[in-house]
Amino acid sequence: MEADKLRSRNWFGRNGKDGFIYRAWMKNQGIPPDMFDGKPVIGICNTWSELTPCNAHFRDLAEAVKKGVLEAGGFPVEFPVMSLGETLIKPTAMLYRNLVSMDVEESIRANPLDGVVLLCGCDKTTPSLVMGACSVDIPTLVISGGPMLKGHWKGKNIGTSDVWRFDAAHKLGQISREEFLEAEACMARTQGHCAVMGTASTMAGMVEALGLSLPNNASIPAADARRKVLSQLSGRRIVEMVKEDVTLSKILTRSAFENAIMINAAIGGSTNFVIHLLAIAGRIGVDLNIDDFDKYSQRIPLLANIQLSGENHMEDLYYSGGLPALITAMQSVIQNNAITVYGKSIGENCAGPEV
Amino acid sequence: MEADKLRSRNWFGRNGKDGFIYRAWMKNQGIPPDMFDGKPVIGICNTWSELTPCNAHFRDLAEAVKKGVLEAGGFPVEFPVMSLGETLIKPTAMLYRNLVSMDVEESIRANPLDGVVLLCGCDKTTPSLVMGACSVDIPTLVISGGPMLKGHWKGKNIGTSDVWRFDAAHKLGQISREEFLEAEACMARTQGHCAVMGTASTMAGMVEALGLSLPNNASIPAADARRKVLSQLSGRRIVEMVKEDVTLSKILTRSAFENAIMINAAIGGSTNFVIHLLAIAGRIGVDLNIDDFDKYSQRIPLLANIQLSGENHMEDLYYSGGLPALITAMQSVIQNNAITVYGKSIGENCAGPEV
Amino acid sequence: MEADKLRSRNWFGRNGKDGFIYRAWMKNQGIPPDMFDGKPVIGICNTWSELTPCNAHFRDLAEAVKKGVLEAGGFPVEFPVMSLGETLIKPTAMLYRNLVSMDVEESIRANPLDGVVLLCGCDKTTPSLVMGACSVDIPTLVISGGPMLKGHWKGKNIGTSDVWRFDAAHKLGQISREEFLEAEACMARTQGHCAVMGTASTMAGMVEALGLSLPNNASIPAADARRKVLSQLSGRRIVEMVKEDVTLSKILTRSAFENAIMINAAIGGSTNFVIHLLAIAGRIGVDLNIDDFDKYSQRIPLLANIQLSGENHMEDLYYSGGLPALITAMQSVIQNNAITVYGKSIGENCAGPEV
Amino acid sequence: MEADKLRSRNWFGRNGKDGFIYRAWMKNQGIPPDMFDGKPVIGICNTWSELTPCNAHFRDLAEAVKKGVLEAGGFPVEFPVMSLGETLIKPTAMLYRNLVSMDVEESIRANPLDGVVLLCGCDKTTPSLVMGACSVDIPTLVISGGPMLKGHWKGKNIGTSDVWRFDAAHKLGQISREEFLEAEACMARTQGHCAVMGTASTMAGMVEALGLSLPNNASIPAADARRKVLSQLSGRRIVEMVKEDVTLSKILTRSAFENAIMINAAIGGSTNFVIHLLAIAGRIGVDLNIDDFDKYSQRIPLLANIQLSGENHMEDLYYSGGLPALITAMQSVIQNNAITVYGKSIGENCAGPEV
Repeated sequence: MEADKLRSRNWFGRNGKDGFIYRAWMKNQGIPPDMFDGKPVIGICNTWSELTPCNAHFRDLAEAVKKGVLEAGGFPVEFPVMSLGETLIKPTAMLYRNLVSMDVEESIRANPLDGVVLLCGCDKTTPSLVMGACSVDIPTLVISGGPMLKGHWKGKNIGTSDVWRFDAAHKLGQISREEFLEAEACMARTQGHCAVMGTASTMAGMVEALGLSLPNNASIPAADARRKVLSQLSGRRIVEMVKEDVTLSKILTRSAFENAIMINAAIGGSTNFVIHLLAIAGRIGVDLNIDDFDKYSQRIPLLANIQLSGENHMEDLYYSGGLPALITAMQSVIQNNAITVYGKSIGENCAGPEV
Repeated sequence: MEADKLRSRNWFGRNGKDGFIYRAWMKNQGIPPDMFDGKPVIGICNTWSELTPCNAHFRDLAEAVKKGVLEAGGFPVEFPVMSLGETLIKPTAMLYRNLVSMDVEESIRANPLDGVVLLCGCDKTTPSLVMGACSVDIPTLVISGGPMLKGHWKGKNIGTSDVWRFDAAHKLGQISREEFLEAEACMARTQGHCAVMGTASTMAGMVEALGLSLPNNASIPAADARRKVLSQLSGRRIVEMVKEDVTLSKILTRSAFENAIMINAAIGGSTNFVIHLLAIAGRIGVDLNIDDFDKYSQRIPLLANIQLSGENHMEDLYYSGGLPALITAMQSVIQNNAITVYGKSIGENCAGPEV
Repeated sequence: MEADKLRSRNWFGRNGKDGFIYRAWMKNQGIPPDMFDGKPVIGICNTWSELTPCNAHFRDLAEAVKKGVLEAGGFPVEFPVMSLGETLIKPTAMLYRNLVSMDVEESIRANPLDGVVLLCGCDKTTPSLVMGACSVDIPTLVISGGPMLKGHWKGKNIGTSDVWRFDAAHKLGQISREEFLEAEACMARTQGHCAVMGTASTMAGMVEALGLSLPNNASIPAADARRKVLSQLSGRRIVEMVKEDVTLSKILTRSAFENAIMINAAIGGSTNFVIHLLAIAGRIGVDLNIDDFDKYSQRIPLLANIQLSGENHMEDLYYSGGLPALITAMQSVIQNNAITVYGKSIGENCAGPEV
Repeated sequence: MEADKLRSRNWFGRNGKDGFIYRAWMKNQGIPPDMFDGKPVIGICNTWSELTPCNAHFRDLAEAVKKGVLEAGGFPVEFPVMSLGETLIKPTAMLYRNLVSMDVEESIRANPLDGVVLLCGCDKTTPSLVMGACSVDIPTLVISGGPMLKGHWKGKNIGTSDVWRFDAAHKLGQISREEFLEAEACMARTQGHCAVMGTASTMAGMVEALGLSLPNNASIPAADARRKVLSQLSGRRIVEMVKEDVTLSKILTRSAFENAIMINAAIGGSTNFVIHLLAIAGRIGVDLNIDDFDKYSQRIPLLANIQLSGENHMEDLYYSGGLPALITAMQSVIQNNAITVYGKSIGENCAGPEV
C-alpha cells in the first residue's frame, strides 16, 4: 500500500483546520513533525492492568513492540481498553467480553490507525480483542503475554490446577494457614498467565494456530527474554503487513479456523475454545458451526502432555519446540496453505523439531 | 470504616480456594503478603493513551497518586478504561461517553476496590468516568490532568481558539504552509488539555465546583510540578475517605449541583456543561433539570476573563488564585455548606486571594 | 534517632537562603512540602545500566524499594553511579571497582541522606558499593539483583559454566554457528546475574552472610516475584534502621566477617571473595587478614551442591531453603550473635528447613 | 564507516567464547539477535538522578533519543554515571567534576560503543561529561536538559536570582515563613535547570556554540515538547555521525572554541565558563589560554537581555529565535566554517529570525 493511501492520511494528511487539530495536539507529546508525513500508524491495544495480574507486564511488551515499529519506519501509538482479569472479576469476566470488544472496535475505527497489535493475556482478553479487531478488519497481529513458569513448593512443581488440592489439604488440616499462604506466592512466582492449558494458554494457542501471531507466541514464558524479542519482531512485522495490506480477513479464512480446531485438539485446549472461536468466526464472517468442532477434532490425537489433561506445563512445551514442532507433526492433516501474519503459510513455517 | 468491613475483604479476606485465587495471582506482581490483610484497596482509573494527547502524561500522575496511597497505608492498583481523545476520534468522542461509563462502572463493581481515584482530562473522559463511578457509589476522588501552558508564536500568546484564525490566514496566503505547521508545535508546546475554557477545562472546573477534587484541581497547569503534588495529596486523601466512608452520593447532593452551575457561570464554561451535568445528576439520583441552569446561573456575573469568552488562559487563573479565590468571591451566593472530598465544606476551604 | 537530629536536617531543615535552595529545586519534581519536614531521607544507589545486563532490571527493584520507604514514612530518592558490567567491560571491571567506590562514597556524603539502600548485582558492583558506603557509615542495607533462572537447551539445563563446553563443541564442528547463537539466548533467558556460584552470587551470599541484607537475598531468582517483595520490605526496613541508628559499622563487626568466611566456604563461593572481603574490612576498620580465611573456612564442609564446584544452580538453593536453611545447619560453628540489618541476630533468624 | 569496521565489532562481532559472552548476557534483556550484526551501538550517558532535580526528567529524554537511534538503524544502550546536583551537594559539585569525567571516559572506552549521546543539565554535569568523552574521541553529541520556565509569584515572574531577594525580605519580616516556602514551589514550578543565565544555561549555550548539539539545544525549555523532539532528532543524527565518522576532535577545533567564547560573551554567560572551556580544550588537545577569552570576547556586545545580567529568562530567548537567531546576528565576527554535529557549518545553519 502506498503511503498516500494509508487510512491515517484521512487525519494527519489533511490540510486546513482539521489537519492542524489532528497534528497539533499530538505534538504535545514531543513527536517530530515528519512522523505525520505518511509513516504507517500502528496502534498497540494494551490490556495492561494491576487488576489483571496475568497482563501486568504488558507495558514492557508494548515498549518492545514500539521499538520494532520504529525500526521498520512506522509510528507506534499505544492505547488502552478495559482489562478483564479473570482471577478477581466477579461474577465472571465473560459478562464483559463483548463490552470490551466494543472498546476495541471503536478505538480502532475512530482513530487514525493503519495497523494494530493486540496485547492479549488473561482468558477473555484474547477473544474480546480479536473480535473487536475483526469488526474493523485492518492489518492486525496478536501477541500473547505468555505463561508463568511452573511454581515450586516443597520440592514439587505446582500450577493452577493444584489450587483445589491445596484447598482440600488445608480443610483437612494437612497444611497450615501459613503454608497455604506461602503456596500462593510459590505458585504465582513469575509474570504471566496460568502455566497450565487453561483458557489463557488455549487462547494463545488459538491465535498462533489461526496464523495471527508469530511462531511460538503460545508458549514462550512471560519471564523469558524471548517474549520481548517476539514483541519487537512483531512490531517490525506489522509495519510490513500494512504495506502488504494483509488485513485480518485475509488470514481468518475457513482454513485457518479448521486448523485452529485441529491444533486445539492436539494441545488439549479448554472447552471455552468453542465459544470464543465461534464468536470470532461470526465477526469476520466465516461460516463455522458447532459440528465443525467434532468433525475436525475427531481424528486428532492429543499430542501435548500438558496439565490439566496431562502432566507438564506450558514452558515445557516451549522448551520442546512449541507449536511449530507440534504443527510439523500434524502436516499431513492440517491446511498447510493457510496464510499467516508472518508472510509464510503455516505449513512453510514449520520445520521445527519433534515434541 | 473498620478494616474487616471493607468491600475488598470479600475478595482478599476470604478463606479457602477463593481467597487463594484472589491473592495468589496478584502476588505474581511482587506484592508483599500483608497488603492483603485489610489495607484499603484504592483503584486508580486511568485514561492515559497516546491517542489522547491531553491525557498522555497520566502515567506520571498515577505514580504520584500511588505514592500518596502508600503513605496513607492503602494498597493502590491502577486500571485502564477506553480513552476518549477528542482531537482524533471521528466523528466525535460523544458517541462513546456512555460506553466508557460502562467500562468504569463494571471495572469498579467487579473488582475488590474500596475507593477509586479517577484520572480525567480530555473533554468526554471526565463525564464518562464520573458517571460510571456514580453508578457504583464508593468513595471517589477526581484528578484532572490540567491545562497546557499557553502557546507562544511570533511573539504572541496562542491557544486552541487561534486555530480558526491560523486556518483563515493560511487560506488567504498570509502564512505559509511551513508557518502553519510550525504554529501547531507552538500551540501544543506542553502536556495537558486545551489552555482555554473549552470542554476539558469546563469539566475540570465542574469537578472542583462539585467538591469532587482537591482545591485548585481545575487550573494547575499539567506541566507545573504542583499537579503531581495535588495527585500525591489526593492519594493520601482517598485512603482517609475510605475510612470515613465518604461515598460519592454524600458529596453529590443537590447543593453541590447548584454550586457547580453557579461556578460554571462565573468561569464562563462551555455549553457542553449542561449535557454532562444532567447525566451525572441522573446517575447519582439527584433531581436536576434544564431550568435549574437558568435559575442558578442568571444572577452570576462572569468573573474569570478566560478565552473563549475572554482573553486569558487557564494558567492565568491558577496564578491568580484559581477557583478557590473565585469561590471566595462568590460566598454570598453559593451553598457554602456543600461537603467535599477534602473533608471541609466548600465554603470553609475558601480563604484564597481575590482574582 | 529523633527527626531533628537526622543528617538531612542540615539541608532541608535549614532556614534562610540555603534552606530555600535545598528545597526549592527539589520541588520541581512535584514533591509535597511536608516531605522536607523531618522524614528520613533514604538514598537508593542504583547500578542499573543497559551495558550491565545482570543489573538491567534494577529500575523495577528501585520502584519496589520506594514503595516500602513511603509506607514506612520515609522520603526515597534514587541516584546512579557508574555501573560495572563484567561481561562487556574490557579489559576487566576490576580496574574500576575503586573508582565506583568513590562515586558511592561522595554521592552519599555530599547529599542529604539519612540511610541508603545499595542495589548490587554483577560481580564488582557489590564490593564497590559496599566499600563506598563503609567510608561514610550511615545506616545501609543491600539488595542483590538475584540470579538468572537456569537455561534450557536441547533438553538440558545450562548455565554460565557451559560456555566453555559450547565453545569447544563449536570449534570441533559438533554444533553449528546457528546452534551456537541459539544457545546464547537459551542460556540468558531471564533477568539477573549468572545462575552459578560465580562472583555475582558469591557476593550476594557475602552480603547476606555479613548481615547486610534481608534473609534470602542471595538466592531468590531475579525473575521471581519475591525479589520485588524483598525489595519492598527492605525499603520499609531501612527507615526503621535510620530511627534505630543501625549504622554499617554496628553490623560489620569481626564476627560478621568470620561468619561470611565460614558461610562462603559452605556455599563454595568464588575466590574473588577474598580480595573483596579484605577491601571491605579495610574500609570499615576491622582487622582481617589472609590467614583468617584459612582459619575459618578450614573446618567447614561444602554444603551447597552448586556449579561451578557442584551440579545445581542458584534457584535450586532458593527453592531448597536458601541461605537461612544453610546457616541453620551451621549454627554450631558460626557466630550466632552477629547482628544484622533486620534487627535480629543471624542465629535468631534461622529456623528454616534443611537444604 | 563500514559496519565491519565499527568499534563494537571487537565485542559483538567476535567468534568463539568471547563473542558468546558479549552477546549472551545482553540477550537477557530481550534483544533480537540481529541487533548484534553490525548496527552502530549508541551509548546514552545519563546523569538522571532524584538528587539532581535539574536532571530529573532525563529518563524521558533518553527514551526519545532511543526512538531516534532505532529509526536510524542503530542499537541504543543507556548507561549511568555519578550525577552532580549543584543545589544539594556539599560543599560544591566542583570537587567531583573530574571524578565524573573519569566515569564517563572509562564507561565509553571499556564498552562496545560506536557513538555516544551525553545528557547534560545541572552545572557540572556538562563539563564533566564532555571532558570524559573528549578523552575517548568517538562520535559524540550533546543534549542539554533545558531550562525551567520562569516562575510566577504574587503576579511577578521569578527566577533563581530572586532567592537572595526573598531571603532578605524574609529576614526583614516582609514575607512570612509560609510565603517563603510557597515561593520555593512557585520558583521551581517545572522540570529543568535554572531559568536564568547561570552555569547550567551557560554550559548549554557552550555546547551549542561549540557545535556539539543540534540547534536550539541551549534554550528550549525542559517542559516544552520540542525538547523531546530535539532528543529524538539527536538520536537519529548520532547514527549518521557514526557512519560519517565525525569524531569529537573533528568538531572541537580551535575555531569552535573561538566561537564559543564570542557567543558566550553575547549571551552574558557565567564566569565558570572560562574554567570549564579550558578544561575541555585541554582534554581534546586544542591550545587555548586565558588570554583568548579577553581577545575574542572584547569586541562582542551583550546581545541577550537575560538575568542575571539582564531582565528576561531562558525561555524568552527560545521564543525569540534562540541561539540560531543570535548567531545569525554575529555572522560577521564568528568563524562561520566551524563544523558541527548536524553536518552543516555553524554559519550555514543560521538563517533564523532576529532576537
